[in-house]
Amino acid sequence: MAQDTLYMQLVNEWTALIQRGVLRPGEKMPSVRKACAQYEVSPATILAAYRLMEERGLVEARPQSGFYVRTQTRLPLPHMRRQSGTVATGDEVLDNIELVLAAQQQPGYLDLSMASPRGGDFYPTTRLKHILHKLSREQPTLATDYSYPPGAQSLREQVARRALAWGVALVADDIVTTNGCTEALQLALRTVCKHGDTIGLESPTYFLLLPLLKSLGLNVIEIPTHPTTGLSLDALELLLEEKRLQAIVAMPTVHNPLGATMPPENKKRLAALVNAHRVPLIEDCPHADLFYGQLTPDAVKAYDTDGYVLLCGSFNKTLAPGFRVGWIAPGRYRRELTRLKFASSLSQPRLLEETLGVYLQDGAYDQHLRFLRRHYQAQMARLQDVVAQVFPAGTRATSPTGGCLLWLELPGEADSLQLSRAAYAEKMLVVPGALYSPRGRYRNCIRLSCCYPWSDAYERGLHRLAELSASLLP
Amino acid sequence: MAQDTLYMQLVNEWTALIQRGVLRPGEKMPSVRKACAQYEVSPATILAAYRLMEERGLVEARPQSGFYVRTQTRLPLPHMRRQSGTVATGDEVLDNIELVLAAQQQPGYLDLSMASPRGGDFYPTTRLKHILHKLSREQPTLATDYSYPPGAQSLREQVARRALAWGVALVADDIVTTNGCTEALQLALRTVCKHGDTIGLESPTYFLLLPLLKSLGLNVIEIPTHPTTGLSLDALELLLEEKRLQAIVAMPTVHNPLGATMPPENKKRLAALVNAHRVPLIEDCPHADLFYGQLTPDAVKAYDTDGYVLLCGSFNKTLAPGFRVGWIAPGRYRRELTRLKFASSLSQPRLLEETLGVYLQDGAYDQHLRFLRRHYQAQMARLQDVVAQVFPAGTRATSPTGGCLLWLELPGEADSLQLSRAAYAEKMLVVPGALYSPRGRYRNCIRLSCCYPWSDAYERGLHRLAELSASLLP
Repeated sequence: MAQDTLYMQLVNEWTALIQRGVLRPGEKMPSVRKACAQYEVSPATILAAYRLMEERGLVEARPQSGFYVRTQTRLPLPHMRRQSGTVATGDEVLDNIELVLAAQQQPGYLDLSMASPRGGDFYPTTRLKHILHKLSREQPTLATDYSYPPGAQSLREQVARRALAWGVALVADDIVTTNGCTEALQLALRTVCKHGDTIGLESPTYFLLLPLLKSLGLNVIEIPTHPTTGLSLDALELLLEEKRLQAIVAMPTVHNPLGATMPPENKKRLAALVNAHRVPLIEDCPHADLFYGQLTPDAVKAYDTDGYVLLCGSFNKTLAPGFRVGWIAPGRYRRELTRLKFASSLSQPRLLEETLGVYLQDGAYDQHLRFLRRHYQAQMARLQDVVAQVFPAGTRATSPTGGCLLWLELPGEADSLQLSRAAYAEKMLVVPGALYSPRGRYRNCIRLSCCYPWSDAYERGLHRLAELSASLLP
Repeated sequence: MAQDTLYMQLVNEWTALIQRGVLRPGEKMPSVRKACAQYEVSPATILAAYRLMEERGLVEARPQSGFYVRTQTRLPLPHMRRQSGTVATGDEVLDNIELVLAAQQQPGYLDLSMASPRGGDFYPTTRLKHILHKLSREQPTLATDYSYPPGAQSLREQVARRALAWGVALVADDIVTTNGCTEALQLALRTVCKHGDTIGLESPTYFLLLPLLKSLGLNVIEIPTHPTTGLSLDALELLLEEKRLQAIVAMPTVHNPLGATMPPENKKRLAALVNAHRVPLIEDCPHADLFYGQLTPDAVKAYDTDGYVLLCGSFNKTLAPGFRVGWIAPGRYRRELTRLKFASSLSQPRLLEETLGVYLQDGAYDQHLRFLRRHYQAQMARLQDVVAQVFPAGTRATSPTGGCLLWLELPGEADSLQLSRAAYAEKMLVVPGALYSPRGRYRNCIRLSCCYPWSDAYERGLHRLAELSASLLP
């Protein structure tokens, strides 16, 4: 058996032991010498396994000593506690978000929650700038010519090429470019739904979906969603059989806010379900490229047989948030969606699309993604450690499979709306859990983000937030 | 009296004589010497008047001879003939537009109709490129940072400053940036209307409004629109009194496709009507900066007392079509619209917005607009001349007050759908009039555009289109 397979076997075995609590936080892992003897493999294989586990935040190296199991917080229960709080209407969501965003623009506020990565260090800004300058010099008409949907051919070709990494076979003509994932979602909903339709959503879900659905006159059914395996397919199947849904929106890979990724067999079943019931699934994947593993998992779209899956992605979380370049592969709804894009916002700035097209063609994106994933994974491990150390006893947290978002369930009857207000008074921004559900569930939850470079201020903020949480506990 | 007032008086007097047919096409204007004696002004004043009239396409200079009245085609009747044709649903509009746009992207097709200016020569491309490069060098985070509605402060300040030229007093906070006028319209409609509402539209109107309204579940009432004075306010008042409209969309300055600009007194009355009835008016002004006069006329928004006018503009027809930078001043609906923008497409690329912000601040825009207006006005005069010379007897045309669009009414029972198909077979793109009305009226009309640099191919295309028109007449 090849050494690289062996090394992954070791990673999987040890990871399972850590997750089951057999290897406990703080415990020393077998030394390289001992492990070599035990598993009959080379020291290089053992070291490679430890390094990957270190990257994944499972173990840490202590100088002159060896590898130790890291402190982990987990949400090991099959279901989250749901508190019915006040009903969070679309307007209330926006009230809160508006407050956070307004503060975010001001100096002096510490953002602990938003998934709005900033700062040139995270991104290949210099390379993008060079491409942008070159293109605008060599093709001045990129600034002056109208371009129409489906968008720049060069970018759509690269999106199609990259979709292979998600197990999806697409050609450029299957893709329409959009103003980020947000517009992709908006156009998808407007294409497949009519006023008064009912949409199935994960619970919790992306908070901006709620005002969007409300503005379109759509009703919502929340579907139980597991913090590690995602959308409950049994619950979904029941709803589909009762013909209560006209569409579904889900984030099956690196869910926001749970960080969950559905197992491949669940994704297969989900694709089969929506195709059998002919109910469109809008698969929203803005964070999928930030999956912590070496390979991005297959999308549900990979198992789509009859085009009922509309896959949405963007480069706003990974490459150039300011470019606002997103895309959608609308399956059987391609023509209607392209037309709606045309009548709704005409087109996207072609110069920016072509810039990303050239960047993606150069092939440096995979290397950049590896950097970004390692970076987020390392920051997430630190965040999880801090949470485990300083938050009140009984606090539980998700184990994100990617991205920068951590979901906390506070103990007892903690009220995160109150917590977020207290934090705001001290110039810290925290998004309360109630916003992630149209019924205001998850009032006992908060979302944290480690999307910014780790800093003392950020860590002090976490400590202070933990103190506030403790002080607010009834 | 100042010489510059005298010169405008002369222009107005002579223009009136030409329009009333007292001075006829081909007739020689008074010589400078004679005019000086007659009006008791300086030769410079006479020459300035002739030069402005030449710019406006009213007279032409013949070397060693003097100024002559140009051939003019006009649509002198108070109303257009309306043919009820097949009903043009949103889908049919898009079928036709899709055909035109697909062909537009291919080499070999001659576009005689679209208002999609292209080509770097028309725009300050070099200057914009320099600003873009400078900003992306000095502020790399413009590419990497999220920015949120209402959009870049620097751009909104400049839009507010420029709105003064339209008689509108705004501050940056009154403005939200959008993906062109199209998204501004879409957001405005979604903000002020709900599913099932009825919208009053000019007839004819901008063709992309029809699929947009259809997609939003909105009904339409067409309001008679005069080719020179625009929307019939008597008809509108009747509808408002009967409470049959929940919103109105109109293009009161440089209407598309008619080129009409409402007189100031009509604009005042329109503003008073919508404020009195509390029915929002979406004032769509993408072509207003291309008004042929020295000064852009006041917008309806200039007379808005209680914020019921939502004013939409963009820089896509005048500065950088590829940047997709538009804006809206949503009046009393500012908060709701900003939120809808947030939930619908999150934000716009800030780098491009800031680039236009810097360009506008530099103050070169007015000069550029003067160039562009002169250019379009000169091309329009040539287009009108060619139409008068080669189109079948009985063809009537509008007298656009700005922009690049000319609306033709073909004689008798001419069928412009048939004409556009015949033109398409010869690789010429013409948008048939039926698309400009939800009931398929204006089947006897076509829209022509002179937005591209004048060329022999374009002129030959016009000649051939005229032949086809003649051959298709019953």
